[in-house]
Amino acid sequence: MKYAVIGTGAIGGFYGGRLMRAGNEVNFLLHTDYEYVRENGLQIDSCDGSFHLDHVKAFRKTADMPEVDVILVCLKSTREHLLKEMLPPIIKNNPLVVLIQNGIGLEDDLHAIFPELQIAAGLAFICSGKVGPGHIDHQCYGSINIGNYSCHDDALMNQFISDLKAAEIEVNTVEYLEARWKKAVWNMPFNGMTVALDTMTNKLLENPSTRQLIRDQMMEVVGAAKALGVNGVDEAFVEKMIQMTDSMTPYKPSMKIDFDNHRPMEIDYLYSKGIQQAANAGYRMHKLEMLEQELRFLEEQGNRLHNN
Amino acid sequence: MKYAVIGTGAIGGFYGGRLMRAGNEVNFLLHTDYEYVRENGLQIDSCDGSFHLDHVKAFRKTADMPEVDVILVCLKSTREHLLKEMLPPIIKNNPLVVLIQNGIGLEDDLHAIFPELQIAAGLAFICSGKVGPGHIDHQCYGSINIGNYSCHDDALMNQFISDLKAAEIEVNTVEYLEARWKKAVWNMPFNGMTVALDTMTNKLLENPSTRQLIRDQMMEVVGAAKALGVNGVDEAFVEKMIQMTDSMTPYKPSMKIDFDNHRPMEIDYLYSKGIQQAANAGYRMHKLEMLEQELRFLEEQGNRLHNN
Repeated sequence: MKYAVIGTGAIGGFYGGRLMRAGNEVNFLLHTDYEYVRENGLQIDSCDGSFHLDHVKAFRKTADMPEVDVILVCLKSTREHLLKEMLPPIIKNNPLVVLIQNGIGLEDDLHAIFPELQIAAGLAFICSGKVGPGHIDHQCYGSINIGNYSCHDDALMNQFISDLKAAEIEVNTVEYLEARWKKAVWNMPFNGMTVALDTMTNKLLENPSTRQLIRDQMMEVVGAAKALGVNGVDEAFVEKMIQMTDSMTPYKPSMKIDFDNHRPMEIDYLYSKGIQQAANAGYRMHKLEMLEQELRFLEEQGNRLHNN
Repeated sequence: MKYAVIGTGAIGGFYGGRLMRAGNEVNFLLHTDYEYVRENGLQIDSCDGSFHLDHVKAFRKTADMPEVDVILVCLKSTREHLLKEMLPPIIKNNPLVVLIQNGIGLEDDLHAIFPELQIAAGLAFICSGKVGPGHIDHQCYGSINIGNYSCHDDALMNQFISDLKAAEIEVNTVEYLEARWKKAVWNMPFNGMTVALDTMTNKLLENPSTRQLIRDQMMEVVGAAKALGVNGVDEAFVEKMIQMTDSMTPYKPSMKIDFDNHRPMEIDYLYSKGIQQAANAGYRMHKLEMLEQELRFLEEQGNRLHNN
């Protein structure tokens, strides 16, 4: 099977690197690191064993890429608008496009642009970061949940899943909407609240008021999922997420890292789209709506400070 | 008429000072400034004309104070618990007790402790600050709305209002609950949001997301007032408050000043009590509840930083 990785960062570099190490042809789209990776390859430091990849097939634009069987989209969702121009050169043979990204509504938006496209959701459970040019640091975890959205080629889907397993990646197949909303139960409260209160996961859970607030916001995600007819997102899952976070080491979610590094935050797909979908179904996520409003303010103020 | 002022700060120093200048006997309760004011008197710098008061009747505890006709309570509501011990020595002759303080529920709580007490609400519209020992700086405004709560001695109430007018204080009589909730329309959003987002009133209104958030929170106060059967707090008043704030110079509300100076914030009476009253009447103030939760967190974190 031939693969393309759109966005060779913490996520794309890791999963693409593993697939390449297992013998698959993987074509990497790169931006700032293009020259470096073309000459030096990719370095994947990993808790499961580090490795280096020479002779990486690096590309600066999709027009130069070959046709592939599977495309892994690993862009930050803040760059989602680029897909409209990026994908056409490499989707002529109707490949499977897997969106390994955070948020709600990504599949719908891509489907609206490319109605024939075979799309799947990829939900990565991984701690990984890009620490230098072509240099990924995978700290822990690494499993991925795959949820079919519009892929009708079962053989292709099965081969993709086999390839992941052969690359020593733990993989589960899930119902895509349930998986997206379950991830939102954790993502929506913790990503934004660590930014809004300039803190980390453990402190939010140690203070009784913000512990209650996190629970309130998680229950709003449960309410939204119910209003949208999504199964399996319930109060028991909320308890599980809180207990899981209690047992984690103090953690900075990706949005906090983006904000601290003056990068745009994924407000649209982590907040606005889900809040809007719920509102259209008659359910108001009041506290997450307020969090979204605070984040828009902080982004504007942060940009102003940083640009002056 | 004889007066007592409990809490001789920005508010008590100004109104008590004006009443004393007009010829009334005013007894001031002081804490840290006691020695200074006893020796040096009070200095009131004012946009309406500055003045100095010599021979100020200063007291360290209410047990030493004479009986009076009217008691002006001008404590921060964070010190409300002190009234239970402070008032008994000076309320034997059934004076009028005027609570010139911010918040919801102050009258009810005092009434629960002293059921026979004659209580009124005082809502001060004033920009004033304490800038040194016995030194008040009155920058602008200064009117006061008086709302009767449990005063049945009409002659006493009328004489108090005449005294205020004679002291060149603009005074209006209002329905106390309507006045308290109208003030909450401005107080609840702006006091907390300037703390939560470390900003000032103008920036909250300039950003479209937080402008909407402020409006959402004001409408929650309208909803709470409706649920509690309070008249006159409506959307038109919300519009008026937003327009008024648009035309103000950038402003730091008192809670932001308290937080920046590591003083306790008036979270109980500005937030918790009103939110609880509304909840008891079946109305949830979602976004103001979240703001209260954020403020509790920030207070705890601020205390921790300041004490270390």
